[in-house]
Amino acid sequence: MQANLKEVTIKKLKERGVSITSIAEITYQIQKKYSDYTVEDYENFILEILEKREVTHAVLTGIAIDEAVEKGIFSPEISEVINRDEPLYGIDEILVFSILNIYGSIAYTNFGFVDKEKTGIIRELDERGHNNPDQCHTFLDDIVGALAAAAASKSAHKQQR
Amino acid sequence: MQANLKEVTIKKLKERGVSITSIAEITYQIQKKYSDYTVEDYENFILEILEKREVTHAVLTGIAIDEAVEKGIFSPEISEVINRDEPLYGIDEILVFSILNIYGSIAYTNFGFVDKEKTGIIRELDERGHNNPDQCHTFLDDIVGALAAAAASKSAHKQQR
Amino acid sequence: MQANLKEVTIKKLKERGVSITSIAEITYQIQKKYSDYTVEDYENFILEILEKREVTHAVLTGIAIDEAVEKGIFSPEISEVINRDEPLYGIDEILVFSILNIYGSIAYTNFGFVDKEKTGIIRELDERGHNNPDQCHTFLDDIVGALAAAAASKSAHKQQR
Amino acid sequence: MQANLKEVTIKKLKERGVSITSIAEITYQIQKKYSDYTVEDYENFILEILEKREVTHAVLTGIAIDEAVEKGIFSPEISEVINRDEPLYGIDEILVFSILNIYGSIAYTNFGFVDKEKTGIIRELDERGHNNPDQCHTFLDDIVGALAAAAASKSAHKQQR
Repeated sequence: MQANLKEVTIKKLKERGVSITSIAEITYQIQKKYSDYTVEDYENFILEILEKREVTHAVLTGIAIDEAVEKGIFSPEISEVINRDEPLYGIDEILVFSILNIYGSIAYTNFGFVDKEKTGIIRELDERGHNNPDQCHTFLDDIVGALAAAAASKSAHKQQR
Repeated sequence: MQANLKEVTIKKLKERGVSITSIAEITYQIQKKYSDYTVEDYENFILEILEKREVTHAVLTGIAIDEAVEKGIFSPEISEVINRDEPLYGIDEILVFSILNIYGSIAYTNFGFVDKEKTGIIRELDERGHNNPDQCHTFLDDIVGALAAAAASKSAHKQQR
Repeated sequence: MQANLKEVTIKKLKERGVSITSIAEITYQIQKKYSDYTVEDYENFILEILEKREVTHAVLTGIAIDEAVEKGIFSPEISEVINRDEPLYGIDEILVFSILNIYGSIAYTNFGFVDKEKTGIIRELDERGHNNPDQCHTFLDDIVGALAAAAASKSAHKQQR
Repeated sequence: MQANLKEVTIKKLKERGVSITSIAEITYQIQKKYSDYTVEDYENFILEILEKREVTHAVLTGIAIDEAVEKGIFSPEISEVINRDEPLYGIDEILVFSILNIYGSIAYTNFGFVDKEKTGIIRELDERGHNNPDQCHTFLDDIVGALAAAAASKSAHKQQR
């Protein structure tokens, strides 16, 4: 069942334009100064992270919200706020806290960094969302940042043990 | 605009079967040992809490998810998990952290208490969700608990200052 | 090294009047309605939880603060606030979030519950702190609650998997 | 009383080598692309932030821990971990969550950014801590980052309202 949720999650990410490799590349960018791990190593860390039920729940819920906004299913008052990804809308960040919490403070600071720098695919998602009125990636860009940050934290913990 | 979000939120809560009074009654239950505030006082605290953009965003997003699950709009894998409110599904609790965070540690402990005790309308929502396969209140019961707990915290802070 | 921190932590808890059994008894109290685990089972869960570096760091830091307050080492302005465990002092709760975060939302709600009910040894610590001006357990009572709540969450996850 | 805690906190920060201006300069660095506020404006935001009891409690507790480590008061097992600011020691970051929580998700991402970039006085504190075995700023550098990030968030909220 859990294995199943993992497969569903990977497929869903792909459908929304995000490969595991593109997430691993973000982790590689932020960690290359401190570590010898390769993009492939980070892919494996991300695949392990996706074993966790809390993680797949967060990813699938977040993408479901983005899709509901695209399809015009939510009431207009909240849809509009989400779709514009207003700076004061913080539910997307709160949702990925359920991923970051598991991986501790290193995950938090790395998430803050890639969220502000908009590293790699995060910038692409951001631009796609802004340039296409029918696309919403408000939750997805934070999900990608959180997975990349979790992989950075996981690799740091592994090196120390 | 913010005033508008507040009105929309109160109306939406009512539509889903939750009055401001029913939330204030929970706060009254958990605070009556420590405080002389009345149900009406807590109603006023809750109305002040609903002035905050982070709060209305959380309430409207949570209810939108419940409604999407009821309408069968989300993909079946995640819909099923949300609808059963699996003990290991924690996104509903995480979402209301965006409310609890603002009101500090007293809000957290009170939320934990009412969530476990299922005080007042929380129990009703829980039963309605379990007895009617076409109703989903997975996010709403946590939203109600968080608003009640935030009002308890607000009243405690007021008494001390 | 990590094993060492675990032993140091267990010894320190004992020095401050808290046995692993007394923590396990809290978990048993709050879980007996839902589960067949015994006090001894919860002791084992708690011992596993104390393998985690984040957990031992939180326990040792919290107890170090309590001891510094008792010895009059901190500056009077903050010592006084901590020693009275003012309702608005929330750093003790925040510190144990580093334990609760790892064990998810079930840990949070159980922590809120035992913190408010003051189950078992938590009440004793609370009273000892209030009745003896030279004892401070402001951080310790939250640490005990968090460890008990983490064990409850760990057992719930185990049953589901 | 609260006013008093604020004055005590400002004095304590100064004693540890941190002026309000040096914190405001970090906020200015990270916000200058998005905003016309001056260093002086950010100083005023920080002074307002220091009105909050949760904030002064966090600052004073964190500095008290740093000082206790410097004076060799804590037990050696935890002192050593704090003094080296081990990457896996996350209690310093958790403590400042009590500041960041109040200021929402913008505060979190900015904190992550300055913590990783080590902007301005944060780098100085970091180096001072590493080069002087008798100085410990493990908590202080996160406190400074959190105050700077809170001011960034406060200014963003003000612009939108």
